[in-house]
Amino acid sequence: MNTLGTSFRITNIGESHGKIVGVVIDGCPAGLELDMDKLQKDLDRRRPGQSKVSTTRNEADRAEVLTGLYEGVTTGAPITIIIRNQDRDSSKYLEARWTPRPGHADYTAGLRYGENQDPRGGGRFSGRNTAGFVMAGAVAKQVLDGIGTNIVAYTQQIGPVVAKDVDPAKVTESNMVRCPDEAAAEEMIRVIEEARSEGDSVGGKVKVIALNPPRGIGQPIFDTLEGDIAKALYAIPAVKAVEFGAGILYAGLRGSEANDQYVIRDGKVVTETNNSGGVLGGISSGMPIEATVTFKPTPSIGLEQKTVDLQEMEETTIKVEGRHDPCIVPRAVPVVEAMMAVVLADHTLRAGVIPQVLGE
Amino acid sequence: MNTLGTSFRITNIGESHGKIVGVVIDGCPAGLELDMDKLQKDLDRRRPGQSKVSTTRNEADRAEVLTGLYEGVTTGAPITIIIRNQDRDSSKYLEARWTPRPGHADYTAGLRYGENQDPRGGGRFSGRNTAGFVMAGAVAKQVLDGIGTNIVAYTQQIGPVVAKDVDPAKVTESNMVRCPDEAAAEEMIRVIEEARSEGDSVGGKVKVIALNPPRGIGQPIFDTLEGDIAKALYAIPAVKAVEFGAGILYAGLRGSEANDQYVIRDGKVVTETNNSGGVLGGISSGMPIEATVTFKPTPSIGLEQKTVDLQEMEETTIKVEGRHDPCIVPRAVPVVEAMMAVVLADHTLRAGVIPQVLGE
Amino acid sequence: MNTLGTSFRITNIGESHGKIVGVVIDGCPAGLELDMDKLQKDLDRRRPGQSKVSTTRNEADRAEVLTGLYEGVTTGAPITIIIRNQDRDSSKYLEARWTPRPGHADYTAGLRYGENQDPRGGGRFSGRNTAGFVMAGAVAKQVLDGIGTNIVAYTQQIGPVVAKDVDPAKVTESNMVRCPDEAAAEEMIRVIEEARSEGDSVGGKVKVIALNPPRGIGQPIFDTLEGDIAKALYAIPAVKAVEFGAGILYAGLRGSEANDQYVIRDGKVVTETNNSGGVLGGISSGMPIEATVTFKPTPSIGLEQKTVDLQEMEETTIKVEGRHDPCIVPRAVPVVEAMMAVVLADHTLRAGVIPQVLGE
Amino acid sequence: MNTLGTSFRITNIGESHGKIVGVVIDGCPAGLELDMDKLQKDLDRRRPGQSKVSTTRNEADRAEVLTGLYEGVTTGAPITIIIRNQDRDSSKYLEARWTPRPGHADYTAGLRYGENQDPRGGGRFSGRNTAGFVMAGAVAKQVLDGIGTNIVAYTQQIGPVVAKDVDPAKVTESNMVRCPDEAAAEEMIRVIEEARSEGDSVGGKVKVIALNPPRGIGQPIFDTLEGDIAKALYAIPAVKAVEFGAGILYAGLRGSEANDQYVIRDGKVVTETNNSGGVLGGISSGMPIEATVTFKPTPSIGLEQKTVDLQEMEETTIKVEGRHDPCIVPRAVPVVEAMMAVVLADHTLRAGVIPQVLGE
Repeated sequence: MNTLGTSFRITNIGESHGKIVGVVIDGCPAGLELDMDKLQKDLDRRRPGQSKVSTTRNEADRAEVLTGLYEGVTTGAPITIIIRNQDRDSSKYLEARWTPRPGHADYTAGLRYGENQDPRGGGRFSGRNTAGFVMAGAVAKQVLDGIGTNIVAYTQQIGPVVAKDVDPAKVTESNMVRCPDEAAAEEMIRVIEEARSEGDSVGGKVKVIALNPPRGIGQPIFDTLEGDIAKALYAIPAVKAVEFGAGILYAGLRGSEANDQYVIRDGKVVTETNNSGGVLGGISSGMPIEATVTFKPTPSIGLEQKTVDLQEMEETTIKVEGRHDPCIVPRAVPVVEAMMAVVLADHTLRAGVIPQVLGE
Repeated sequence: MNTLGTSFRITNIGESHGKIVGVVIDGCPAGLELDMDKLQKDLDRRRPGQSKVSTTRNEADRAEVLTGLYEGVTTGAPITIIIRNQDRDSSKYLEARWTPRPGHADYTAGLRYGENQDPRGGGRFSGRNTAGFVMAGAVAKQVLDGIGTNIVAYTQQIGPVVAKDVDPAKVTESNMVRCPDEAAAEEMIRVIEEARSEGDSVGGKVKVIALNPPRGIGQPIFDTLEGDIAKALYAIPAVKAVEFGAGILYAGLRGSEANDQYVIRDGKVVTETNNSGGVLGGISSGMPIEATVTFKPTPSIGLEQKTVDLQEMEETTIKVEGRHDPCIVPRAVPVVEAMMAVVLADHTLRAGVIPQVLGE
Repeated sequence: MNTLGTSFRITNIGESHGKIVGVVIDGCPAGLELDMDKLQKDLDRRRPGQSKVSTTRNEADRAEVLTGLYEGVTTGAPITIIIRNQDRDSSKYLEARWTPRPGHADYTAGLRYGENQDPRGGGRFSGRNTAGFVMAGAVAKQVLDGIGTNIVAYTQQIGPVVAKDVDPAKVTESNMVRCPDEAAAEEMIRVIEEARSEGDSVGGKVKVIALNPPRGIGQPIFDTLEGDIAKALYAIPAVKAVEFGAGILYAGLRGSEANDQYVIRDGKVVTETNNSGGVLGGISSGMPIEATVTFKPTPSIGLEQKTVDLQEMEETTIKVEGRHDPCIVPRAVPVVEAMMAVVLADHTLRAGVIPQVLGE
Repeated sequence: MNTLGTSFRITNIGESHGKIVGVVIDGCPAGLELDMDKLQKDLDRRRPGQSKVSTTRNEADRAEVLTGLYEGVTTGAPITIIIRNQDRDSSKYLEARWTPRPGHADYTAGLRYGENQDPRGGGRFSGRNTAGFVMAGAVAKQVLDGIGTNIVAYTQQIGPVVAKDVDPAKVTESNMVRCPDEAAAEEMIRVIEEARSEGDSVGGKVKVIALNPPRGIGQPIFDTLEGDIAKALYAIPAVKAVEFGAGILYAGLRGSEANDQYVIRDGKVVTETNNSGGVLGGISSGMPIEATVTFKPTPSIGLEQKTVDLQEMEETTIKVEGRHDPCIVPRAVPVVEAMMAVVLADHTLRAGVIPQVLGE
């Protein structure tokens, strides 16, 4: 189904080339004065056509609230926010139904939905549906604002270029790849432009951190924070790995190196390191919640690739035409933030009043 | 909540040192003749005390079916399977409530449940609850058997030792670390024993593959196969990263290297490579579904670590006593298989009759 | 939450005096060519201002599909259908927040949502939200059409006037109270007009029948057909009793009178009587599914009633101004049909392929 | 599925003639000291063989807690409570599979589950599964105790005998039919014994009242209190009507008679009457929550009835042998209480901290 969450639930609606894309948010607490400028700003960060490293398509995505607000304040009723799509030429997508583009969902969507799916612009499988994620995330961020939690994300890797670790409290978006390591950013831009000039694309990684998260949220066994965050992140097209804290590096560590040891700082229990990424036993410890998300290279490339003509059942080749992002990672940064925010808002509300720390 | 899944739903019950651990399975199709020997065999693979690389605790875990079978056949009613726990000395766990063990859930469990949780043996946060996962997985595997899908998993890495890639169709468990690369296995055993002898522990990775999976299962947007598999795997204690197919390596690839190109083999549409790990757009392509799971080192180590006395709010140290697995990875192999099986059974049943391939 | 159903799920959105009212339908099978004229016709049957026995407010409710259709055919994606509200004067509702109208939800809504709810026109508690029910029901009816199931409803009682039983296959809407017993209908109209002329209102009953329903749908224990139909019907404002088949009359019967005995007619197993209303053990038998729904009188009346000024905490009185239905029952008929259709479509899809009858 | 509820969720497990019947309760708050004597007492009230008006089968049902308690106190983990079934002769039930008993679920269960269901003693469709309801209800009652809510139920009607209304605060169980109107009770006993002596059975009604319920619980639109209570009550076998407050009598009332008018008593806002049964707009007002439940006569009767041999597809007759309740209503009283308690506990927890009354 197209719904995520338990207490703060989002339902994604719309199609890439249909009338609208949007989201219905159920469970948002009543009494929140929604800041639509912040919401629009996050949408603008996701928008295509922002810079030379993204697609040159330029869409003015304007959020419009249909339900759930009264005099600008949430009422507890479902909040529906939509973006009207502009008219688009969908003709070039129609053939993908029968000659699936490698790396795209064309083939598997055909397995699942047969001929009845909307083929225009990827339909339900389009990255455009992440505009709905961003709008839901913007509302979730405002819920989290109320408890002092702030979410930041940035580009950590593009192709072979890996950024140095940075203080998450100091992350700003000062360049078009959204990487706070300026030297790495320059190199990343070069790598993306090189790929684009060759009709190719590159992958990368986004790091996301929730600062000052609520302590004690998450559920043991199945609805762990890690599990629910990972599930939400895998809803973003092209995500292929999700790590928490030290992530895959844990495999090579010893327990004595890996364990985060407890100390008291400023009268509070904290850990000296944060290898766990702020989550133990599926529950937040109060340390920053840190996840790293790997994106595959944009599958739309101008180079010739093998594919199959499904009607004739014969092999053929395809070059994907059109203007595409040579690297989706910079535009994915606000989407990653959004999904983290949605899950944390959900688990915060699920936990009700958060219990006090034992002994404090 | 303690329930996972939509059409094939499992509810995990029990405590490490309580009367039982177990599982309730709801939604298993009627008419399945349950092979209890296979189920018991998977339990035995997870059992402590199997080899010198696991804990020397020796528990005879016998599965007992309480509900849902009539003359050995499933009826469509909930299937309850339990294991009775043996009497155990829980005294040494009681103090962990107030001096949390680094890397364990003691501290976060205290944040969430306060004083009312069952502290004995980790209670609800104990790895022992994965016995319920394995029993659910054994039932799920038998559902998948009916459609020809087979799940294998093996140890891919322990500490610095990485196994060579192997043909998943040929994986057997011929050594105590469950690594089919025999040379690597020997080295892994050495690494584990070294860690144990030093009172320390090591992490590692498990690779899991579903061979001949159903095509066209998974749901677009939120209930993607990757998202639901990742969520299920994060329910296993100590998991800190989940990757699909090429996983984190995708970050460094170009689209032209990463895309799996379509060809026809034996009259079927397949891809030449399987970087995507068998999932595109959240939906299975029919290629093997491949995931890699990173486990952190067992947090229970005999070395002295910093912690905090929560009652006195002062810093102190702790050495974790008792017999513990110096590396949980070999025993985790059947647990990883189980969670993959549970999710695939769930999505297979959710999809109903799987649509035919377009053009085939 | 604002969502109903498992496999065919509807989410109700909108406010009475907000921008829109509407519905999101998730799980509708792909490939259904939606007949918008039928949908609009059901909306028109629910519309205020149709006849002299309903409110004289006249609203032109036009359904608009925002998502989920491609070239008029469902794609399996969520279907969003909305109605834009016309501008309305909401000023007279604002005071109800502090001097609750007897029989309305003003007081309990205040308990639940405090000051943040949308007070205009009843907001989320308005009967206007049933326009979304009717649109969802119209889609569900078209799903049921495909399996030959037809749903009819009619007015069975208004005030003291009870209609004679009629053949459900012959029900037509030939009068403004939607009662197929013409003599009773005339009397019902008189009763309603009398109440209206006195500033009062009357209650009544609607009977709903699903003809040729799928056999074997419904789930044992909790998700029984009766339970899910009753829950859906109680979502209609003013419903206070739901009965199946012989309903409350069962209390006075003996088993020998009450049991529906099995016979063979035209080669099929049927029951001689249908006291059970087509459901046994929560599962449909194939006989018509019959429910009777009691509506309380419209709480909005022009007579003086006692209420409380919640700000001053002192007793006062209220007369409810404005044009209101003196009897909601005739307009509720298509709403009752809609909720029956939604639940049957949901359970039909949940059951997957319906098993064959044993022995047939 | 076999699960009910959102925040306080119960999963019903077991079969009438299997090893156990029981329940898993998920979401019960941690820290509740469970009074097992009270739980056992409710079980004893439901038990067969209590009096001459119930079946003469005599089963000693002893509740046993398997999980979720630590030193007698709930931990927040799932609570599993079971009753071991005694060995029973199931042979006489086996034939019901092919010659369905009128009024029972034999026929519809066959439609749904084919040959794989457990036929012994009604299997999953047996009234014996309501033992699990009673155990869940006993836990829910103890949750409600903590907020001062008390639930009472009594027999209101058996066959033609209707009890006079009684003050719910004074209901005691002083006779075997659980009717507080002693004169009516005597008559009811006579009616039941007469039916039994003729091999027949009778129906009846149970009234249930929640005294001092939390105000402001319930959700608008779909998860209304009435809808969720009705759904839970329809899970009890033989329930065919559920009414709230004035129920079906509302159909014959005028608004001026039906509306509950607000007044101030002892500094609190209350209504002069309680026709609404304590619920407006799906949300509790704080007045007693009142529902009336109609039970059909026990379908098992010794008289000859028509049925069909499904294997031969020919008409035949059946007399249901064995010891059965000539009237299930007295034993259903604690089951009705239990389902009311489960739903109120669920909605109380869903609502979190209950908002204060506007103006108070």
